[in-house]
Amino acid sequence: MSKSAGCCKRFLHYAFDYETPKTLVIPSLGVGFVFRFTQFLVVMYVVGYVCVVQKAYQDTDTVISTVTTKVKGFAFTNTSDTEPRFWDVADYIIPPQSDHSFFVLTNMVVTPKQVQSHCPELPSPSTTCVDDCNCVEGRSDPRGNGIQTGLCENYSTTARTCEVLSWCPLEIDTKLPEHALLVAAENFTVLIKNSITYPKFNFHRRNILPHVNSSYLKRCEFSRLTDPHCPIFRLKHIVSEAGEDFQDMAVKGGVLGILIDWSCDLDWWAGECLPKYSFRRLDNKHPVNNVAPGYNFRFAKYYKAADGEETRTLIKAYGIRFDVIVFGTAGRFSIVPTIVNLGAALSFLSLVPVVADWFLVTCSRKRDLYSRHKTTHLTEDADSLFSVIV
Amino acid sequence: MSKSAGCCKRFLHYAFDYETPKTLVIPSLGVGFVFRFTQFLVVMYVVGYVCVVQKAYQDTDTVISTVTTKVKGFAFTNTSDTEPRFWDVADYIIPPQSDHSFFVLTNMVVTPKQVQSHCPELPSPSTTCVDDCNCVEGRSDPRGNGIQTGLCENYSTTARTCEVLSWCPLEIDTKLPEHALLVAAENFTVLIKNSITYPKFNFHRRNILPHVNSSYLKRCEFSRLTDPHCPIFRLKHIVSEAGEDFQDMAVKGGVLGILIDWSCDLDWWAGECLPKYSFRRLDNKHPVNNVAPGYNFRFAKYYKAADGEETRTLIKAYGIRFDVIVFGTAGRFSIVPTIVNLGAALSFLSLVPVVADWFLVTCSRKRDLYSRHKTTHLTEDADSLFSVIV
Amino acid sequence: MSKSAGCCKRFLHYAFDYETPKTLVIPSLGVGFVFRFTQFLVVMYVVGYVCVVQKAYQDTDTVISTVTTKVKGFAFTNTSDTEPRFWDVADYIIPPQSDHSFFVLTNMVVTPKQVQSHCPELPSPSTTCVDDCNCVEGRSDPRGNGIQTGLCENYSTTARTCEVLSWCPLEIDTKLPEHALLVAAENFTVLIKNSITYPKFNFHRRNILPHVNSSYLKRCEFSRLTDPHCPIFRLKHIVSEAGEDFQDMAVKGGVLGILIDWSCDLDWWAGECLPKYSFRRLDNKHPVNNVAPGYNFRFAKYYKAADGEETRTLIKAYGIRFDVIVFGTAGRFSIVPTIVNLGAALSFLSLVPVVADWFLVTCSRKRDLYSRHKTTHLTEDADSLFSVIV
Repeated sequence: MSKSAGCCKRFLHYAFDYETPKTLVIPSLGVGFVFRFTQFLVVMYVVGYVCVVQKAYQDTDTVISTVTTKVKGFAFTNTSDTEPRFWDVADYIIPPQSDHSFFVLTNMVVTPKQVQSHCPELPSPSTTCVDDCNCVEGRSDPRGNGIQTGLCENYSTTARTCEVLSWCPLEIDTKLPEHALLVAAENFTVLIKNSITYPKFNFHRRNILPHVNSSYLKRCEFSRLTDPHCPIFRLKHIVSEAGEDFQDMAVKGGVLGILIDWSCDLDWWAGECLPKYSFRRLDNKHPVNNVAPGYNFRFAKYYKAADGEETRTLIKAYGIRFDVIVFGTAGRFSIVPTIVNLGAALSFLSLVPVVADWFLVTCSRKRDLYSRHKTTHLTEDADSLFSVIV
Repeated sequence: MSKSAGCCKRFLHYAFDYETPKTLVIPSLGVGFVFRFTQFLVVMYVVGYVCVVQKAYQDTDTVISTVTTKVKGFAFTNTSDTEPRFWDVADYIIPPQSDHSFFVLTNMVVTPKQVQSHCPELPSPSTTCVDDCNCVEGRSDPRGNGIQTGLCENYSTTARTCEVLSWCPLEIDTKLPEHALLVAAENFTVLIKNSITYPKFNFHRRNILPHVNSSYLKRCEFSRLTDPHCPIFRLKHIVSEAGEDFQDMAVKGGVLGILIDWSCDLDWWAGECLPKYSFRRLDNKHPVNNVAPGYNFRFAKYYKAADGEETRTLIKAYGIRFDVIVFGTAGRFSIVPTIVNLGAALSFLSLVPVVADWFLVTCSRKRDLYSRHKTTHLTEDADSLFSVIV
Repeated sequence: MSKSAGCCKRFLHYAFDYETPKTLVIPSLGVGFVFRFTQFLVVMYVVGYVCVVQKAYQDTDTVISTVTTKVKGFAFTNTSDTEPRFWDVADYIIPPQSDHSFFVLTNMVVTPKQVQSHCPELPSPSTTCVDDCNCVEGRSDPRGNGIQTGLCENYSTTARTCEVLSWCPLEIDTKLPEHALLVAAENFTVLIKNSITYPKFNFHRRNILPHVNSSYLKRCEFSRLTDPHCPIFRLKHIVSEAGEDFQDMAVKGGVLGILIDWSCDLDWWAGECLPKYSFRRLDNKHPVNNVAPGYNFRFAKYYKAADGEETRTLIKAYGIRFDVIVFGTAGRFSIVPTIVNLGAALSFLSLVPVVADWFLVTCSRKRDLYSRHKTTHLTEDADSLFSVIV
């Protein structure tokens, strides 16, 4: 044999000699049963819990969504406070379009014919005055409504308040109607069109399902039991599903969430991926811990008189903002999470012999016999190592 | 030796005696090859697939983004139906600002000089009447346009309909121009500024890249081939990249997604993290399964006449809503997913001896010899255990 | 014994014979220490890093949120350029309501009394002309302001420009006030109500915390040190926390992010899940790489004169858009990630004997003795396998 051949042989031995543990086969029903049972538990956990319940073999992606809404309905108001008036979509939806929410006006405080001028402040402890000395020109109280001019004027026959520079007459927002003006809004309907994408899976879907036809859409209305896939919702129904009363909520306004859950298992036939609707009030209705309860905002319509003077109608709009919140996670089989979870489970399989061995040498009847055959104690002068220390 | 010393020694033996499997080295090329090859497969899987392809060693975060848009362009319309009119940004972008979408008006039905009054309904099977008996005072048909006054009036020389209380004259939205009014909108451009954050990695970036200078931005226009990083888009180009025709889409409106994908691998030089633009129509253009195809909404401009009467111009606005949808996941090396994935892969390495042992005792030529040396059967009276049962 | 009994016995042996590795116990302090120390390292890693630091035992969910904002404050402007004017919320918040951002007007270029007519272009190299031959009827320059009529008119005593059909007079937006008009906006306050949900954990929370009462909310103002949970923010404070100067930013506008981080560990008492506020400018303030620096948009107020002619006031609004960006990930103990991470860690425990064995046969003093007892070399005529090849 040449030298290189010997070297090569050593390499082959090094690389390809296979080192395998010597094993002892023990025909013990008890130990065998413990071993198989432990194995069974681990396999059951992997199959039953990780795979079936938690779907840990799936890769996941979160939803991307677009929403358009279209409200339908009209109302006629005729209360003692206000003139008779007819309301349609262009009047009560503010702003006219938005991307995933819409606001329905239900109540309001209107202050018409405001112009830039001066007028006495609304009476309050900080604004009442006796004479001009109580008012400071140029002062602006954050809780007030304008810049003081330094004069003290008669607000009414009984009260004198500092005059302010502001849009006059001032808004008196304490006179909010107790019954919402547009209570008829409860019968308005809204069509919600929602289109979603799971970009990782290149999966697109709409909430108007393929099997839904045009004539059905013209007459249907969402109902959890009879029409769970109709995308047309009656506002009253939304509010009552959220556990609220429309009449109550309409007075001071509020924020209501229309939640669309697109959680899907894309391993199954994709047609099974359906939106699930739920409704929840998002602001706090309880007056405790609450400044400015409900939901309102101010906006103005500006007019120009013939002489060029600008007047405005200030509207403090109370109403319900409906937020369409789309969420969801889709899962689809993917090799990486599968491998990771299987690998983690395999680790537990490697615990099985540890359990069985422990049972073998401590609990089985013939433990001494098994121990003697399984374990060799290397005793010859090895003890000296320990003896040195002790 | 004292008693405590003996106790201490027993503890040392318990804690530090090392129990290692007895092994058998088998110089078989076949078995060795099977062993090494299986090992190689597992290592290749870990390195090649988990690390390189799936980047399983990375921790991930999803993008947080802000968008501002600015449309430029003007148009002149002069059709037989409408007066000649010049349109600029303040006229056709509604509402004037929004956070991640913008609406470009392309077509409309204008109903000027509406006032709160009464007028006969638009003719339809449910509104035509013969005399006042067909109309019920106070009835409001959801498909109608107002509250019935109980009178039956002449709508035209041929048709009589119930009179309603509403904004009159009523809108006739069936007369939608067949050619979009603002077809010139296709040449408008939009500048999209997008700033993103990956909070977990404290990574911020904008879609106006560092190497882009101001003079380039003044003249550039997005083009997938020549200017892939220019944030200025021609509307026509967006629509055609989405596979649609601007002229068609402009008539009835629609929703178009401008998708910006910020998926990034932050392990590499961060400068390589670039936005990828794509475009997709988000509403369903096919008329089937579609109520209210396209995209439109109504809004009104309110005017006050000299005598204080409020009039409005109702506009049913058709147009394209462009939704800027920003998404993406960034990954960066992190020790936890690395350890988890390596651990899972190691589990598979622990399977390798199982495979090799199985090959050893079933397929190799000298399986009897190997089995005899590897495995000891504990037979002495152990069988009795089974014999008891059988 | 019958045949079936023998068959059954073979099956029992097959299923329940327990095969366990023969082991060798080595009483070596060195090897034992290496073994225990390596074990200790792995356990420390699992307990310390994976569990405590990275909370890898938790399942996570991302936040879903709703925001409402309400700005308070008023201002009075009286500069040489403009008429004295009083501003309140309805004037400076545009649009009046939005879902997670609000725009505060701080500066503007107003062009009142625009009507559809024709007027000479603003002078620029491309619009100046000598006579009508320089102007082409119907041409619309994208950088211009209207459709050319083909006439060359006197813009001023020194300049002649092409006449255009447009809203006239044209806006001259180069005359932006150097000091922001509404500098007083820095003292406006905003109340941000934010309600969040982690749908996977059915966890809801608001940024107005349970222990906050109504009287506190009426007077508090956010301050990182003294009032970290007050949801009322002074605009000046927001801007300065973002490292910007309000006066500077107000001139040309900008986009400012109010980031609310709801990252929570839901394993602890849920009351500890608190919002963390931070502020960051989102647009690029540096003029380099910047077309249209700052943030502005155009909108118009439309008026109708007594004779029915429509006029408008065009406003180029500069201001600060505050984007409320809510993000966060909640974690809660879940069995699947726990199992996966423990499993992965167990894999590393299975590496420990490999390390100890390697130490045993290469570094320990009695390595020859140990090797001899541990490993059996199967040499009898096995070498022939290799000999055949070499």
